[in-house]
Amino acid sequence: MFIVENIKEIREVIKKEKKDGKTIGFVPTMGYLHEGHLSLIRKAKAENDFVVVSVFVNPTQFGVGEDYETYPREIEKDSELAKSAGADRVFHPAVEEMYPATYQTDVEVKKITQKLCGSSRPGHFKGVTTVVCKLFHIVNPDRAYFGQKDAQQVTVIQQMVRDLHMDLEVIPCPIVRETDGLALSSRNTYLNEEERKAGLILSKSLFLAEDLIKNGERDAMKIKNLIRENITKEPLANIDYIEVVNANNLAQLHELQDEVLIAIAVKIGKTRLIDNIRIKVL
Amino acid sequence: MFIVENIKEIREVIKKEKKDGKTIGFVPTMGYLHEGHLSLIRKAKAENDFVVVSVFVNPTQFGVGEDYETYPREIEKDSELAKSAGADRVFHPAVEEMYPATYQTDVEVKKITQKLCGSSRPGHFKGVTTVVCKLFHIVNPDRAYFGQKDAQQVTVIQQMVRDLHMDLEVIPCPIVRETDGLALSSRNTYLNEEERKAGLILSKSLFLAEDLIKNGERDAMKIKNLIRENITKEPLANIDYIEVVNANNLAQLHELQDEVLIAIAVKIGKTRLIDNIRIKVL
Repeated sequence: MFIVENIKEIREVIKKEKKDGKTIGFVPTMGYLHEGHLSLIRKAKAENDFVVVSVFVNPTQFGVGEDYETYPREIEKDSELAKSAGADRVFHPAVEEMYPATYQTDVEVKKITQKLCGSSRPGHFKGVTTVVCKLFHIVNPDRAYFGQKDAQQVTVIQQMVRDLHMDLEVIPCPIVRETDGLALSSRNTYLNEEERKAGLILSKSLFLAEDLIKNGERDAMKIKNLIRENITKEPLANIDYIEVVNANNLAQLHELQDEVLIAIAVKIGKTRLIDNIRIKVL
Repeated sequence: MFIVENIKEIREVIKKEKKDGKTIGFVPTMGYLHEGHLSLIRKAKAENDFVVVSVFVNPTQFGVGEDYETYPREIEKDSELAKSAGADRVFHPAVEEMYPATYQTDVEVKKITQKLCGSSRPGHFKGVTTVVCKLFHIVNPDRAYFGQKDAQQVTVIQQMVRDLHMDLEVIPCPIVRETDGLALSSRNTYLNEEERKAGLILSKSLFLAEDLIKNGERDAMKIKNLIRENITKEPLANIDYIEVVNANNLAQLHELQDEVLIAIAVKIGKTRLIDNIRIKVL
């Protein structure tokens, strides 16, 4: 079966491949796959012999009042898409097997989870690191692929892997955008036509900031202000945060240097969108 | 080299063994090895092709005012003892490599760590699960061996392994005792002659409780009272806790049934000793 629904079975499939000397690429997702996910799967397939895509809407990374119940689910279509992009198996476990009633263990990265999305979504990253740690133990991949759209998530997972000495490589992959600039996200489906247009303000503002930096600006405050002024012009937009940080440890920057991450979170109507750019400042 | 001091090297040694189809047995210790540890190493060697013993006094499992600084260390002698019992390598990492300055990740088992030793040693089990999770990732064993003397520790690690889907077997091993009954512990070295004698009150009280149960007593309170009365007679002893619990989930029992754990912690002078018995009640 292409869709594997329990832990024992996926483990057996993977152990067989490993025994034959095959390398395992892993793409953990919450499903409702879009071109961003598919780019991860294609890269995983190009770099590994056997690719597992997990589709699991992880309850522990949603806060109270967030969209766990309504998060879009479409496993049959996801499965076809994953297959077409090169996946060898889709792992689609039940919540009850991932979190049985006796479940009581957390994996938590501390400092860098307090910033950016961490401050507006308390507990979110603890849910992410816990489920990713569990999935890594189940799938035992050589390489795991994550989209750079969730920039903080990538940094947090890299920190966990390093701190816990997990024997695998975390591979960040570029953001995939619509032709008009909107970063792909399963949550874009929540936007109506008007909101969809308003959502462009995120990438537009980031690209303006990028131009400013290319023209020599190094003052983080000025860059933040430019972004803030732009987003504020959009009546449907409500800023959650605008941050200019070191891309590796997420420390706030006053003056831009080295690898810079500009990350923003903006509510468009009821939908919270995030976007970011990474810039190497010489 | 028999003693391996860095992560990269022990990983390479183990990967080579695994590639040759060998199974790996692992005995994590804080060193100052005694007959209890050696019994674990012998069992590991009997059940696996290749045995790794780690010797690491883990700072994160000691609380403020506990004995991290003074915990006895004797790596050369430990290494000889481990070898004589069948170990193939001793892994003895530096604190700086296990916990670099940027370290910020915890693995925490929640509910069952609040009871027994958890309530008098806050943070202790978080330190234990974190370091054991790290060591499991480094050593990647098929089986890991733990002494039943630290009964709660075994239960907590089993819970972590189950919750995080770690692909290995945790094997609890019986308590090893001196001929007079004292459970072996590296901390017994702290006792002077008088305290050493007073320390016998732990095992003596547990054996009395065992007799009581064998004679039909099923009331947890009566059993606790018997133990309490006995220990109180010993002037050097100060009770930390006396618990009668379900051995699998550490839930308090009023009436004894199934797998029962009677666990006690007692200070003898400045030294905190623990001991326990497991009894199957029909």
